[in-house]
Amino acid sequence: MLSESELINSLKTEFPNQIGDDAAVLPFSEQESYVITKDLLVEDLHFRLKYQDPISLAYKALHVNLSDIAAMGAKAQFVLLGIAIPMSTEEYIHQFVKAFAQACKEAGVYLIGGDTTKSPDKLFISVTAIGIAPKQNLKYRHTGTEGNLVCVAGDLGKALIGFTALERKEAGFDVFKEAFLKPKALVQEGQWFGTQQGVTAMMDISDGLFVDLKRLCEASKVAAEINLNYLSITEEFKMACQHLKLDPLSTQVSGGEDYSLLLCVKSDQYLAIERAFKEKFGYGLKSIGHLTKGFGVSFFHDGQPKALTLHPFSHFGEF
Amino acid sequence: MLSESELINSLKTEFPNQIGDDAAVLPFSEQESYVITKDLLVEDLHFRLKYQDPISLAYKALHVNLSDIAAMGAKAQFVLLGIAIPMSTEEYIHQFVKAFAQACKEAGVYLIGGDTTKSPDKLFISVTAIGIAPKQNLKYRHTGTEGNLVCVAGDLGKALIGFTALERKEAGFDVFKEAFLKPKALVQEGQWFGTQQGVTAMMDISDGLFVDLKRLCEASKVAAEINLNYLSITEEFKMACQHLKLDPLSTQVSGGEDYSLLLCVKSDQYLAIERAFKEKFGYGLKSIGHLTKGFGVSFFHDGQPKALTLHPFSHFGEF
Repeated sequence: MLSESELINSLKTEFPNQIGDDAAVLPFSEQESYVITKDLLVEDLHFRLKYQDPISLAYKALHVNLSDIAAMGAKAQFVLLGIAIPMSTEEYIHQFVKAFAQACKEAGVYLIGGDTTKSPDKLFISVTAIGIAPKQNLKYRHTGTEGNLVCVAGDLGKALIGFTALERKEAGFDVFKEAFLKPKALVQEGQWFGTQQGVTAMMDISDGLFVDLKRLCEASKVAAEINLNYLSITEEFKMACQHLKLDPLSTQVSGGEDYSLLLCVKSDQYLAIERAFKEKFGYGLKSIGHLTKGFGVSFFHDGQPKALTLHPFSHFGEF
Repeated sequence: MLSESELINSLKTEFPNQIGDDAAVLPFSEQESYVITKDLLVEDLHFRLKYQDPISLAYKALHVNLSDIAAMGAKAQFVLLGIAIPMSTEEYIHQFVKAFAQACKEAGVYLIGGDTTKSPDKLFISVTAIGIAPKQNLKYRHTGTEGNLVCVAGDLGKALIGFTALERKEAGFDVFKEAFLKPKALVQEGQWFGTQQGVTAMMDISDGLFVDLKRLCEASKVAAEINLNYLSITEEFKMACQHLKLDPLSTQVSGGEDYSLLLCVKSDQYLAIERAFKEKFGYGLKSIGHLTKGFGVSFFHDGQPKALTLHPFSHFGEF
């Protein structure tokens, strides 16, 4: 099976310099740019109808796209909704559409078009989101530099715990299930990071810290060293992992679908940014390592190199 | 089963004035607007792998979107490609991606992003296209007025013949099969109509003349009277219909997937536009009727009202 990155590489060969960030940049005015992204959600790959209600699915379909826009430092403005609808899901889709419209209103974005069609069996959702940002606020993946701190805003691994609990039909784990079923894009945070000159690069973490940081490192032509001691593993997180027989560190490092933000910050500006962030958003920004010469992502624990057994987050395909 | 128009109406209720044309309009510069559209292609609904090669599918996936952009009077500039890929189609998708890139180059559009993912069984393609037009060139569906002539540029019913022949495994019908498998958007024509002040309204014909003209009439709050004598039914078309036991008139009126252009033209400017069109494009513009007070689409033949048994074009779902 062709991997996503092989496909993207094959497209990149055809269109160099066009593809790579969370969203593509288009000219708008002298001061501002549009950013545009699209994400697919496929039944029984990204969601299962049996445990995903239409309201959370609508919310998620929107927010995975809002997250890409936020990761560029931009403000989402417009969305287009494409749905391929199996015969059996009429009532579900009615609720989905209503909830999608509601989620758009809450996020202050306009639904401006789309496409609906029947589907032979699975439900497919394709959302395109368009945002606007002052040009100088745009953040990319290829602009991280040696010496930058690697930071994360938002949770790591929570959605993987929720997903695992849902797949294994475990009762409880409500907070974790919610993180998977109804992630909330860090819309305000992304825009705010856009205004911070000390933030040199940004992307959202949709496929897990390890996979996405590796992408950022490749784009920026640097390596990253991550100090696992700096990950914040709560008692609740540890207990949930224990119950599900997951390794807490690996879960944080490889769990996808959290839609947190991964950023590179100039080390001499980190303290000011961290303080201002906490004041504005009421929670902490985690500095978990730094960029260095070379390539690849390596992990350290208690000062020693640490090998982790990582399974890149890959939805139901690998379960 | 919820129809597409019911769904769109349900979305329209939530977002009045936002949805309706072939593409949505976004601000660009003082003189120009962006237009943006997205179309879904679903395996075994819009195409079948068993008779659609990856090259024609790539071409079609692009051109159904280019057609929407052209129908707004705009020039396509950028596309995003989303694909959900079943395990079994690796080699097919490799060729599809290469051909899609090639089709983009031929059309002068840049592939700027997208999303790829696995799919549990069916291949699912979602393309978003973005165009640019001078604001005064933009054409809509809601601006047709009483007395305008109803005109068509391009073929009617050819794709339905091809589709029928393919589904029934009939040999021959190559021109018709090509029309279904690899439609060519009227990119230049759409842009040119955009520059014509005498063209009051425009849309592309993707779901068949009857269905799409009805949509235009609803948007413009007018009725349309179509003179079936003005449809150009060639000998080749008639023979193909005869062989497949299709009614030639109904096939022209209800056949979808031709991606021709439907336009309303001020009657006093028709002759000049028709002449200039023929000179520029080497083929004729068909005037097939006119807009009038009221609602709905009615047909006349030899001066008499004519009832047609129409099956709205609905792909494999209805076969």
